[in-house]
Amino acid sequence: MTAPTFTSTLTVEVIDHMGNDARIAQAARVSTIAAASLAEHDGDNTGLIGYLMRDRHGSPFEHVTFTFYVHAPIFVFREFMRHRIASYNEESGRYSQLAPVFYVPDENRKLTQTGKPGAYEFLHGEYPKDDRFDVLYSLEVSCQTAYTEYLRLLSLGIAREVARMVLPVNIFSSMYVTINARSLMNFLSLRTKSDDSTYPSYPQREIEIIAEQMETHLQRVAPVTHAAFVKRGRVAP
Amino acid sequence: MTAPTFTSTLTVEVIDHMGNDARIAQAARVSTIAAASLAEHDGDNTGLIGYLMRDRHGSPFEHVTFTFYVHAPIFVFREFMRHRIASYNEESGRYSQLAPVFYVPDENRKLTQTGKPGAYEFLHGEYPKDDRFDVLYSLEVSCQTAYTEYLRLLSLGIAREVARMVLPVNIFSSMYVTINARSLMNFLSLRTKSDDSTYPSYPQREIEIIAEQMETHLQRVAPVTHAAFVKRGRVAP
Amino acid sequence: MTAPTFTSTLTVEVIDHMGNDARIAQAARVSTIAAASLAEHDGDNTGLIGYLMRDRHGSPFEHVTFTFYVHAPIFVFREFMRHRIASYNEESGRYSQLAPVFYVPDENRKLTQTGKPGAYEFLHGEYPKDDRFDVLYSLEVSCQTAYTEYLRLLSLGIAREVARMVLPVNIFSSMYVTINARSLMNFLSLRTKSDDSTYPSYPQREIEIIAEQMETHLQRVAPVTHAAFVKRGRVAP
Amino acid sequence: MTAPTFTSTLTVEVIDHMGNDARIAQAARVSTIAAASLAEHDGDNTGLIGYLMRDRHGSPFEHVTFTFYVHAPIFVFREFMRHRIASYNEESGRYSQLAPVFYVPDENRKLTQTGKPGAYEFLHGEYPKDDRFDVLYSLEVSCQTAYTEYLRLLSLGIAREVARMVLPVNIFSSMYVTINARSLMNFLSLRTKSDDSTYPSYPQREIEIIAEQMETHLQRVAPVTHAAFVKRGRVAP
Repeated sequence: MTAPTFTSTLTVEVIDHMGNDARIAQAARVSTIAAASLAEHDGDNTGLIGYLMRDRHGSPFEHVTFTFYVHAPIFVFREFMRHRIASYNEESGRYSQLAPVFYVPDENRKLTQTGKPGAYEFLHGEYPKDDRFDVLYSLEVSCQTAYTEYLRLLSLGIAREVARMVLPVNIFSSMYVTINARSLMNFLSLRTKSDDSTYPSYPQREIEIIAEQMETHLQRVAPVTHAAFVKRGRVAP
Repeated sequence: MTAPTFTSTLTVEVIDHMGNDARIAQAARVSTIAAASLAEHDGDNTGLIGYLMRDRHGSPFEHVTFTFYVHAPIFVFREFMRHRIASYNEESGRYSQLAPVFYVPDENRKLTQTGKPGAYEFLHGEYPKDDRFDVLYSLEVSCQTAYTEYLRLLSLGIAREVARMVLPVNIFSSMYVTINARSLMNFLSLRTKSDDSTYPSYPQREIEIIAEQMETHLQRVAPVTHAAFVKRGRVAP
Repeated sequence: MTAPTFTSTLTVEVIDHMGNDARIAQAARVSTIAAASLAEHDGDNTGLIGYLMRDRHGSPFEHVTFTFYVHAPIFVFREFMRHRIASYNEESGRYSQLAPVFYVPDENRKLTQTGKPGAYEFLHGEYPKDDRFDVLYSLEVSCQTAYTEYLRLLSLGIAREVARMVLPVNIFSSMYVTINARSLMNFLSLRTKSDDSTYPSYPQREIEIIAEQMETHLQRVAPVTHAAFVKRGRVAP
Repeated sequence: MTAPTFTSTLTVEVIDHMGNDARIAQAARVSTIAAASLAEHDGDNTGLIGYLMRDRHGSPFEHVTFTFYVHAPIFVFREFMRHRIASYNEESGRYSQLAPVFYVPDENRKLTQTGKPGAYEFLHGEYPKDDRFDVLYSLEVSCQTAYTEYLRLLSLGIAREVARMVLPVNIFSSMYVTINARSLMNFLSLRTKSDDSTYPSYPQREIEIIAEQMETHLQRVAPVTHAAFVKRGRVAP
């Protein structure tokens, strides 16, 4: 029997990307410049991209696309897939046997909270070591029990789509996500924490870890766009 | 401590709807008829709606909308939300404590399968009674363990969004779904079983139960549309 | 031969709508309240809807839908249909002969502009009467010529889809639009003028006239939502 | 004064693309294969891609994206933008002065039609030479008149967004389009002619010319996908 593995590692790998700051500027200039001059336009796009971000001309940012491979638990993917402007292909519990890899929070993950729903503040460093022990204990007990029953049902010939009903939402899954830069900025805007009084956001820490990794890829591929997004207060155009 | 409840009941309630066959025909006629005559057109829409379905003029069907309230386990909602052309609001495990209600298959649910992924055939009536007993036993063991640990963590002050990680995908949730008739027909086409050699579909039985209930509402609200959909081989326009 | 008609009247008729403020609140409460209590919740939704608007919980607003019938020239519909989250059915120049009804600006429409693209300021009341005369003259000359040629080609048996190529973008068309309240607020945010330094928008006056009419319907059907949208600075959640 | 130019040339230039058949297969295999083995899978994807197409597993095809630059008249773009799952940036008649380039049908374009709306048959080679002469004559008269008035209004200081109202729908425009392979196949399915009794389509010839050019790019970038699309009867998955 396979023993469960517990890990806190959430990963994003960039598989491919198309376009960059210059492409965004090129697409935007079609509005105003004769076709022939479009490709040849050279030099700094900072002003134009800042203008697009500020005046909510969002469509030029859709010409930059990314394909990511994400490894995270089901409860993260549940939140991720609420974002409808992206393309998803995920591991299937109907078509394959799921591996016994389960998520546990690492030592930096705040476990208790105060405040009201949607605007929690987590208590960092103030809780006793026992909290983390308690969480790990509960996760191990329930994941081990669940996976044992999962394997037992499979060994009896029960359909995978039925057997998987026992599995918890912290089991790892993986997916390919293709998303354009505009939609990605919307994702980042909502899934990274912001105390901005105009645009507050209080994402669950686990999806924020995924978002932070995606943001580094946006920053690398389209640095002018990313800088304008940050300067604009992390609001998507 | 709250004792877990196990149920096989999956429900769809229609909260509201807008439009009907006449509206679909009215919207389609804008293509060809002077505006003034649109509202007054009377009589049978069967021919026109059949033509729209056959020639893939799908947009007129988007003017009929439904709001449903669905009660089903998480593994069903995971599949449901892959359909991006709909509006969802679901119970939150971050904002509220989840109730201990868990899904178990009823006696008609086939539990073992043969065939290859994507085209399973379930063995009905040929498996021993033990299969069902085994599944119920495993579900109860894992759900009870999980929910006990969930409550223990909450009682220790652990955040709901952390504690819920122990819970299995057969725990019930509920959501409001607003969807138009075109998108609903696409959902039905993929989420009800079809052995049609041109358009086969092999949905998991649980989402099919939800789909079947939605289909009765489509049939009641827009009977001519539903009949044309069936006649066309259950392919969305 | 049919003589062209010139008009400045742009109209929006509401054909149907579904949902209201209470529905939005009901859908939002599914996140936090046990299912049984949802429908019974009574009283004021102002606080909840203001919170949804402020914290960008946009999905509950998608459960309110409208079907509009819009009568406006092609250049307005060209801008309208850039909004992809709506359902459209429009009069077809392939399937029917277009009526000779053409748009002309009324006396309140500012005709000359200063400033840079995207942020024009129109000169109101300062231009000579001749400007309006000049515009009307040019529109009449070109529309009459175009429509005469259109009829001539049709009378020769030329296909409608070919003959219509001569027609100008100020010819009137009509369409049915179904759109939800969230998407409608996005439309209003971009298609009504705002000098707000954070969210400026400089729509063409003609689409703004359409937007203003739609806004009265939103305000009537979902007054709490509309008030929260205005209070929030006319930014869609 | 600039003299109008008349042309029959409709062009599609591929600016960039991301992904190919192997990427589609890789994304599909995430359903069934352990993550580690995904990238290494080698060899023929014909069977898998054929299966995806046949069983309507459409999402893997969304990981292939194209950016096109299209040069065509407004009446073509009007039809194109009805396809909502794509990203558009088009030349603006508000922000820039439009060039006097107008579309005229070439000698292969059938100009008269028989049959009923939605299923016209064009009479090829049977019409007298005069038909083409008549069409060219009407287009030149109306385009020249319109463009003369357009320039006159601009010279008087009338806003571009007002002056452009006189221009006909056969004036050329240009746009960037980013679209994924699944959505592109849907576009091809509806915008190339098919007499297939199950999936008939009767596009206007001008958008079909654009579609045919796009199809060559799909075929070059993802030949196995394109072959499966054709074999399946040109229906998008």
